[in-house]
Amino acid sequence: MYRKCVVCGKRASIVIERARVGFCEEHFIEYYERIIKRTLKRNGFSGGRVLVAVSGGKDSMALLYALNKLKDDLGIEIMALHIDLGIDNYSIESRRAVEKLLKELDIKYIIVSVKDYLGVSIPEAVKFVRKPPCSVCGLVKRWIMNKVAYENNYDYIATGHNLDDVSTYFLKAMFTYRYEDIVRGNEVISPPKPELKMVGRLRPQIFLTEKENLFYCEVNGVPYVDLECPLSRGALLKKYKTLWETALKLNPMSQYNFTRSILSIKKKIQQEEIEIKPCKICGFPTTASDGVCSFCKLREKIKIMKKNK
Amino acid sequence: MYRKCVVCGKRASIVIERARVGFCEEHFIEYYERIIKRTLKRNGFSGGRVLVAVSGGKDSMALLYALNKLKDDLGIEIMALHIDLGIDNYSIESRRAVEKLLKELDIKYIIVSVKDYLGVSIPEAVKFVRKPPCSVCGLVKRWIMNKVAYENNYDYIATGHNLDDVSTYFLKAMFTYRYEDIVRGNEVISPPKPELKMVGRLRPQIFLTEKENLFYCEVNGVPYVDLECPLSRGALLKKYKTLWETALKLNPMSQYNFTRSILSIKKKIQQEEIEIKPCKICGFPTTASDGVCSFCKLREKIKIMKKNK
Repeated sequence: MYRKCVVCGKRASIVIERARVGFCEEHFIEYYERIIKRTLKRNGFSGGRVLVAVSGGKDSMALLYALNKLKDDLGIEIMALHIDLGIDNYSIESRRAVEKLLKELDIKYIIVSVKDYLGVSIPEAVKFVRKPPCSVCGLVKRWIMNKVAYENNYDYIATGHNLDDVSTYFLKAMFTYRYEDIVRGNEVISPPKPELKMVGRLRPQIFLTEKENLFYCEVNGVPYVDLECPLSRGALLKKYKTLWETALKLNPMSQYNFTRSILSIKKKIQQEEIEIKPCKICGFPTTASDGVCSFCKLREKIKIMKKNK
Repeated sequence: MYRKCVVCGKRASIVIERARVGFCEEHFIEYYERIIKRTLKRNGFSGGRVLVAVSGGKDSMALLYALNKLKDDLGIEIMALHIDLGIDNYSIESRRAVEKLLKELDIKYIIVSVKDYLGVSIPEAVKFVRKPPCSVCGLVKRWIMNKVAYENNYDYIATGHNLDDVSTYFLKAMFTYRYEDIVRGNEVISPPKPELKMVGRLRPQIFLTEKENLFYCEVNGVPYVDLECPLSRGALLKKYKTLWETALKLNPMSQYNFTRSILSIKKKIQQEEIEIKPCKICGFPTTASDGVCSFCKLREKIKIMKKNK
């Protein structure tokens, strides 16, 4: 089924089950980029300065390549940001892949290290706290991305969250009754709030799957790292893989529709305005009731624990 | 695991995985009835005249038994309604089981036939229309329940919707992006709107599973029909069974939490007020833009098709 490209009738190189179509390489690229543009435009995006966060994995590498190609179309000016997490070989390889693509595309970029901001690398940091590694790494990256983007006058940070990520995040939030996680975050676009030193967010691949991002890299010769983070990155996705496979067998649109349903619901919910204020230490936005953001709390904690060692 | 009753330490007869507890028969009954009471009271129920819809299956038979037992506690006055669908042996057996329980409990009741209202039985009706049988049967039952309850001065209709039903209904609504189905219906309580001839709804078993309802029947010696409707009742549930099994393996609370999440979301959504008006033909409430309710449309259609035969 769907053995032929829906556009030109040539042999299909990829099948998009949820849309019940096949594409040859050329028309897949068209499709992929159309989805990126549509996702942004339908959510009211009208351009600006965009800092693209690239980890070196297939999703963000595809994103950087696509946004660079579409920059005139979208009315954006881009710069890439790579954060070196300091996770042994994984980070070395990631950085190498990112640098390779940056050189090829001849894009402006910044490479920073977690250690420069936090005092320690991610593997060291996770030893000091009881939180799961992905949660520590996530909060550190978000803080660094926002700081770098803000200080370089960028309006938005674009990240490579894909349909598998976002649908799983939402499903888990429902399965664990974390109402806040359903209502907050993971929008296609969060507008910038410069008065709060808060850069906006773009998730242009929210309606594209892992598989599609991978194929987009392959057909465009985009390099990417295929390593798994040794600190168990993607653990959540793996846990939910069988579940989504079962769901997609029931209905190939289930994952896509589920995500759309949540996004529609979110738009209708009367958001209780959560007070965002500047962190007492770093001045970047926080919702913490004690006025100190999670990044500064982590940094202080690590400082004290290192001193006491 | 959970081999002992959490209350008395005796050998457990049933394990409630999502609560990580086991119960002996005696304490299961306590638990079950506590959930019924809590579900109603936490949703603001303060008693009234309740018409209990009993099909003869385990869910509604357990409901009738429990509500009858708890009537003083809940401040309710109950009557049972059984609707004979006219589905051959399935309906004959169902009616027999219902009559057996009614006699045992010595409860006031009404038994009506679909044919008396619609002119034909359900198996005949489905032949005349292209809708799925469950959808036709559902709309007919809802109309009859509302009419009987309204004309007998009941404030609420109680139905045996269980956790498996409701969670699957909501999940399917999300997987098919039927936003309306997420937002509307399946609340624990819908208040009566007497000015619209609209009786309220109670779903006291929304947080109890099929398995629990079945066990409640067993331990109380409540009769029930174990037949499947030959017109494919429960088809949706069966389709989603493997999916929920996978989800429950991931997290035994997933189904429960998912349902709670949706119910919480629904409460937060600004409901666009849908205009409900009296049906031009029967006078009972409808949201149809042409002012004729689905039941009357169906009845008229059948009348015409029978004449033309």
